Parts: sequence; C-alpha cells; structure tokens
Amino acid sequence: MTFHISLIILLFGVGHSSFSNPMLLVEQQLFQYIDDHQDEFVQKLAEWVAVESDSLQPRLRAKVTEMIKTAAVSLRCLGADVTLNDTGIQQLPDGQNISLPPVILAKLGEDPLKPTVCFYGHVDVMPAKIQDGWKTPPFTLTEIDGNLYGRGATDNKGPVLAWINAVSTFKALNIDLPVNIKFLIEGMEEAQSIGLEGLLEKENQRFFSSVDYIVISDNTWLTTKKPALTYGTRGNACFSIEVEGGEKDLHSGGVGGIIHEPMSDLIALLDSLVNSSGHILIPGIYDDVAPLTEEEKQLYEPIEFDLKEYKTNIGVKKFLYDTKEEILLHLWRFPSLSIHGIEGAFYEPGIKTVIPSRVTGKFSIRQVPHMALSTVECQVKKYLEDVFSERKSPNKLTVTMQMGASPWVANIRDPQFEAAKKAIKKVFKQDPDMIRDGATIPIARMFQKITKKSVMMFPIGAVDDGEHSQKEKISRSNYINGTKVFASFLLEISKLHGELKLEASKLKIET
Amino acid sequence: MTFHISLIILLFGVGHSSFSNPMLLVEQQLFQYIDDHQDEFVQKLAEWVAVESDSLQPRLRAKVTEMIKTAAVSLRCLGADVTLNDTGIQQLPDGQNISLPPVILAKLGEDPLKPTVCFYGHVDVMPAKIQDGWKTPPFTLTEIDGNLYGRGATDNKGPVLAWINAVSTFKALNIDLPVNIKFLIEGMEEAQSIGLEGLLEKENQRFFSSVDYIVISDNTWLTTKKPALTYGTRGNACFSIEVEGGEKDLHSGGVGGIIHEPMSDLIALLDSLVNSSGHILIPGIYDDVAPLTEEEKQLYEPIEFDLKEYKTNIGVKKFLYDTKEEILLHLWRFPSLSIHGIEGAFYEPGIKTVIPSRVTGKFSIRQVPHMALSTVECQVKKYLEDVFSERKSPNKLTVTMQMGASPWVANIRDPQFEAAKKAIKKVFKQDPDMIRDGATIPIARMFQKITKKSVMMFPIGAVDDGEHSQKEKISRSNYINGTKVFASFLLEISKLHGELKLEASKLKIET
Repeated sequence: MTFHISLIILLFGVGHSSFSNPMLLVEQQLFQYIDDHQDEFVQKLAEWVAVESDSLQPRLRAKVTEMIKTAAVSLRCLGADVTLNDTGIQQLPDGQNISLPPVILAKLGEDPLKPTVCFYGHVDVMPAKIQDGWKTPPFTLTEIDGNLYGRGATDNKGPVLAWINAVSTFKALNIDLPVNIKFLIEGMEEAQSIGLEGLLEKENQRFFSSVDYIVISDNTWLTTKKPALTYGTRGNACFSIEVEGGEKDLHSGGVGGIIHEPMSDLIALLDSLVNSSGHILIPGIYDDVAPLTEEEKQLYEPIEFDLKEYKTNIGVKKFLYDTKEEILLHLWRFPSLSIHGIEGAFYEPGIKTVIPSRVTGKFSIRQVPHMALSTVECQVKKYLEDVFSERKSPNKLTVTMQMGASPWVANIRDPQFEAAKKAIKKVFKQDPDMIRDGATIPIARMFQKITKKSVMMFPIGAVDDGEHSQKEKISRSNYINGTKVFASFLLEISKLHGELKLEASKLKIET
Repeated sequence: MTFHISLIILLFGVGHSSFSNPMLLVEQQLFQYIDDHQDEFVQKLAEWVAVESDSLQPRLRAKVTEMIKTAAVSLRCLGADVTLNDTGIQQLPDGQNISLPPVILAKLGEDPLKPTVCFYGHVDVMPAKIQDGWKTPPFTLTEIDGNLYGRGATDNKGPVLAWINAVSTFKALNIDLPVNIKFLIEGMEEAQSIGLEGLLEKENQRFFSSVDYIVISDNTWLTTKKPALTYGTRGNACFSIEVEGGEKDLHSGGVGGIIHEPMSDLIALLDSLVNSSGHILIPGIYDDVAPLTEEEKQLYEPIEFDLKEYKTNIGVKKFLYDTKEEILLHLWRFPSLSIHGIEGAFYEPGIKTVIPSRVTGKFSIRQVPHMALSTVECQVKKYLEDVFSERKSPNKLTVTMQMGASPWVANIRDPQFEAAKKAIKKVFKQDPDMIRDGATIPIARMFQKITKKSVMMFPIGAVDDGEHSQKEKISRSNYINGTKVFASFLLEISKLHGELKLEASKLKIET
C-alpha cells in the first residue's frame, strides 16, 4: 500500500512533533532506513566506481556506455521509464569518429498534482591511474577513516547514487513519492558535455515541458563541515590577441633596435588589461555588473570560510583583499581577468634570442551578471585597438573572443532553494552557506537558458573531496547524509510547491 | 728561386705602374695564377664540402675530426708546421662524454723582419639534410649560374680555402711570403667554439706572442656587390625574470580576482623595459654608450645599404627609423632590447584557463661599447626590482643574467684595416663599406680580450650567401676574388707594417 503523502501534508499542514506531523514521521522512517542500509548504498557506489567510465580517453568509450547502461538498470529498478538517447558522434583530433555514449532520460511519476523535479548527473569520470600518485587503486572504492576513496566517488557517481538511493528508500518503504521525478544522466560531462545542448533543445518542449525544478549536484560545499547551496557561477570569455609582424622569425642581433617587435606590442597590450590591484582597465567593463544589494551583502556575512586555511590550500601568501566578504565578492560576483600565456614565442628553458614574427597572447575574463558576452567582446576589442593604435606599430592586430560562456545566477527565492534549506537544516542541523562558484559551470547556464526552469546546484560533497585529483573521495557521512537530505528535499519541495499552488488557486478564486 | 718581395718593396717604395712597381708586378702574377687555377680551387672546395663535418650532431663527430685532419694536410702542403691540439671533452645533455675535435695551430715562416698574421677559420658546419628543402644535395658542391651551393660553402670552408689558396699561390709561383702566417682552425664553431677559450689562454704567451694581426673571415658583406670590412659587433646580455607565486598552478575560476597573479607581474615587468619606439627604459642604460663622433658618422654615409631591399629580405613593413644612417646606427652601435618569450605559461594553440604559479620571462640586450656587462646587470636588476616593488606584490622576483657576451670594436686605423682596404680596392675596384654587425660574434671579442692583438673581420661572402640556410652558397666570383684579395692583403700588410717599423726606427734614431 502506498501513502499519498503529498496530499496528507497539504491537508494536515505543519506541526511541531512527529506525533502531530505525518511528514516528520515519514522523514524519520526514511532517515532510519537510510542509516540501516548505508552499507548497501556504499556497496552500490563501489560497483559504480569499479567501472572505468573515463570519457576523455576514446579507448575507454565502451566503459562509459557500460556505465550508462548500469545507471539505466538502477533507474528501471526504481520503476522509472528509461530511454537511452543517441547524441551522435565525436570527431577526435586525429580525424577519427567515435560514437558518443547515450544520454539517459528517465521519468518516474506523472501526477499532475505533484511538482516535477529533474535531477541532472553524470556517470563519466576523469582519467585516473595508480601511477599518478593514488594511494589506493582508483577504481576500487576504499574506505579509510570514514572516507570513501575512488575516482568518481564525489564527481559525480556518489551524488547521482545518493539521489537514486533517496528515491529507492521511498520505494522500499512503500511511501508514495511526493514528486514526479525525471532524470537526465550523461556520460560526457568531463569532456564538455559534447552533444548535450542539442538534446536539451530537442527535448525542451517534450521531456522538459512538465519539469518545475532542475537540481544539479555536481560541485562541493565551501568547507568540509558546513553544507551549501550554489546559486550562481561566473561566465568565461576567452580572448586571444594576435600581433603579426613580418613573415618570419628574426634574429635579435640582425634586426633588434630597428623594427617594431610584435612581442613588445603584445606585452604592452597584455599589460594594459589589468592593474596590480586586480582591477580590470577596460573602459565600461564594470558598467553592467549587477549592483550589490543590501540583501545580497547579508548572504555573505554568515558564510563559513577560513581565509587562512584557503590561503594554505591554494598555496599563496597573500590575497588582494583582507576580509572574507571582499574575497568572496571578488571571487563570485565581480569579474576578474587572468593572463594565461603566449603562443608563438620561445617557451622552453634556456636562451633563444629570436624575435618571433607572430605571437598570440591568451587571457580570459570571468564575467558576472549582467555582463553580456557581446558587450564584453566589443569593449575588449575597442580598447585593445585603441591601445595598439597609440603605439603606431606597423604590425597587424587581431583580437578574437575564442570562447564565451555566460554566467549563471538563480533566484534564491525559488521554492526549491527554500525546500533545500529546510532539508539541510533537518539533516545537518544548520543553515547552508548560500554560495556561488567563481568558475564556470556551463551546464547550469545551459539548462537555465534552454528550459527557462529554476535551476539549483545542491552539493553534498565537501571542499576537500579532491575532484579530478589523485585522492578523490566522498566521506561516508556526506554520502549517507546526502541521501537523507535529498529524500527530505523531495518532501519539502512537494509541500512548498503545494502551498504555492494552493495560494495561487485561492488568488484565482478571490479575483 | 724565391724573391724576397717584402724587402724589395721596402727598398723600392710605391710606384704607379706595374713596370716601376715590383709589388704590382707580383700581384698581377698572383692574380693571373689564381684566375688560371680557379677550377682547381673550386674542386678543392667540393672535396671539403663533401665531408659532413656537422659539429652539432654527436654521431658525426668523427667527420669533424676527419675534416680537421684534411685541413691539416692542406696546411702541411703549404709547408706549415702543424699541430693538432686536444681541447678535452664535451658533456652531452644526456650525460654522455664525447671528445672534442682537435684544434689546428699552424705556422708558416718565422722571419723577425716580417709581420705575423694569424688567420682564424672553422671547418665544421651546421646540420643539413636534403629533406630540409635543399634543391641540391647539401654535401655535393653544385654550381648553378655562377653560385657554388653546398653546406659550408660560405660558412666557413670557402673563406678558409680562399686563404689557403692565396698562400699556396705564393708557393706555386715561388714568391717568398711577405708575412709570417699562423693558422688557427677549429671544428666546433657552430657549437659555440667549446674548448677554444681555454686553448687561447694556454697559447697566449706561446703561439700568439709573435702574432701582430688576427684575421677572421666568418661573416658576409652588407650587400651582394659591395665588399665590406667589419670592425665591431654588439654584445649580448641575456636575462630571465622569474616571478613565483604559490606552489601550484591555479584555476582562473577558482582564484581569479583575489590573488596577485605572477603572470600579471611578469607582463608589467616586461612592459617596463622598452617603449614603442624601441627606446630602452632602464635608467642609465645609455650612459656608457660611446659618443658618436663626426669621424664615425662619416663612415655611414658611403655605406651601400638599400633599405627597401632589406625590408623585403627580412619581411617587415616598416622600420623604426627612416634613414639608412639611423637604421645602421641603431643596428650596430646603439643597444637594443628584445623580449623573447615566457617559460612556464600556456604556449599551445587553444584555450587553457590556468593561472601559472611560476613564470619566467626572457629578454636580451644587445649592448655596445663601452657598456660593461656588470654595469648592465646591476642597472637591469635595480630597475626591475624597483618596478616590482611598486606593484606591492607578494610574489617572489628573481632577475638573472643568464649569459653575457661583450661587444667588440676594433680600431679601424690599425694597419691591417688599411691594408685590407687597399687590397679590396685593387681586386674589387671600389672602397669597402666599413661595417659592424648587430649580432654577437664572441670569437672576435675572445681573441681581442685574451691576446690583446688587433682583430679584423674580413668577409668575402655576399649578404645572400644563406649561412645556416637551405641554400647556402658562395659565388665562384666571390670565392676566387676572395682568394685574390687575401693574396693582395698579404702584400699590403707587409708593406704597411714595414713602413710603420721604418718610421718607428726613425723615431728611435731621432730621439
């Protein structure tokens, strides 16, 4: 027999003890089950980690497909309607074509009275070899001092399984799922999610039409202990500045002192971009940065972030700013500019006194809402052309935006953020840090842009999980509590969504 | 029977026709012989070019030694007293040790009444493979339209043989050599003359004690038609600027905007070195540049140098200066600064948004008389440290002079320059361009510094000879006229040296 828990919640409202509140009762049952079955969940993670589903090495492509099929089996066990969707082929640098692994689209429940939550995850992993310096075999999940080490443990097999575990717990306890659930599970995330955007566009009016909320759990908290919800990422606009002089490289003895050297031009252009305080010198670049509101400022105060520890972790001596708030603001919601290198000039150890004829400088701007890529592109080009023209150099300048990814920011008042906060408070007994990510996570922006749905990043891993590194892990506690927090979230979002619907229908009757 | 021509000249003085001037008569005999035997000389060059005496590829070291021995045989045929001198071993980058080829020291004549001219040359060559784009087999001397193509044809086997041919012509005609001749022939020039400096120091008080003049013929004219004498080269001070931030490379999304990026510091430092007009911005750097005298200025006016053609040759659109004089002054006798590249930063095509933790910029200053290397080193370090300290960066700066070679300048009033001018006028019917070289030829400076003797660079190749390139050649005409000009030079230097001695002895008597 299946309880129609969402309906019960709507009827009974919120109480303060498990005796008067059936939702709390259900939650306690779910949590108890998860605790009791944690070894099974860890065992399942071990099985998944054992598949070397490395999406970067073409020779392992079959393993990725095998992993996708394994995930599909797990979803079918939940009772989901699963399809494997072909996204075409990948052309390798050597010209060879190779099939992309299929993308899983799955749905579980189609109750029009319930909200629909779509969970995104990936089951491919970064390469890993024991020779890289792993202390444990990377594809054998190994528990040491409460940590589960293995490639993919936190990125992203652990979180995907935590979600599946949560859903399976409802099923095991015969509790009706309070929401309709959809899954999008891919196998090419570590390779820039090749093929995914096309699928999203194709499925936007079908698979995504009934989706209310999209949850991604593919990043980590800001600390090791305090949970977090991520509501924004910076974008990334990558530029190249090419300065072309003559037809061939020249000898610095043979022409040094009589020609306009392309390298001097390039160095001057690169030096014009950002000052020693990290301030970007491109006119107008800060014009469209969203103003910092008082409300937003207050989000930063409670965030747990140990500057000293972070400094040690990244190995630098001093930051550009002194306070936690300034650091986080400049990392998350103000743009930054970094110079990466120069192509075409001497880069090896030793000496080579050549004057290169064509050099290309690379830099990138991590832009933030509401900086539009097209505006940034124009500002950068105009400015560099002006700086260059002042040099009166006969060389040829070409500025190109090589790649542009937009920033993403969610409305933290969306019901799913509220629901996640409540779930976190229940499981971890504290409020989450409301955080952004200074880096670019194109997938969040891609979902938001194409589907126009509410997107939330709901991490369960800790900051020291070492994604992509030789000591990737997820702690048993984060994995199991992550499973609980997802289960709790399903209850909470159902409830909040129901209340909203009730309010909306009341408004409808009143008007 | 042997004419004691030097004595005859001293007794007869200078006349204006071959009938009244025995030196002219001798010269005509020499020139006639050289013209008549030019095919033999070309044949000898073909034999030398056929030896792949590549000093850069250790597997060909035996060929270099073979070539040295071949040269030794030629010198012994002249009647010279030849020794092969061991200069030790070379340690290869893989740690292997390999013997250096011996250096030839040879002497011919020890008449205390005659001046002693030491000729320096090398018989090793740069690597060459037909696959590199040669139109003719590089080690088969091939004559096309009056040009003799082959590796080493102009650099430096042709000039070495031209000198030997000149001496052998005296011998063939049974004309007493007007000078004592010494030879220093090495086989490691293309590999920075490893081992040579030690030998020079060892032999300074022995082999070089009786030397009056040192002649190097290892460069080219400034044009294809007009002969030249080279009296100076710039030096080369190579610097590295290392900026070290944290312990590891960082992600520009993860820390961009909150740290002092080493790359920004380095770019600012590099940009502080030279302005868009090519002016070096290091305080004091021009202080010790020798003032330009009126007499020196006048050397530039008659120089044949087609700016337009040179621009086309090197493939640039515009020079920093408009006149021939300005161009040559800035190429030869004013310092220049070139930025070569950056080690430790991203240099490949594409995008990599990493913030490198340690980057090293490379630049060099071609310095000129009387800039001392130690002063330049201090000025550069002091300036860069000042610029860096203004940035208030927590990163670590290390400025290193990786290599320093001093400039060389000769006194163009030395008798050997006068003698060479006269010889050139006779053979080529025009005055030579008095030129310098913007590049660094350490050997000239090394001879000057160690032996304190007069050093002259006496090129016979043309500017289009393509040293080190896939179309290296010497024209038959330059090779044969080069042989004549060397023969004539021996007569002229003997005469001038004699006149100087006579004047000196007169002065001695008068005082």
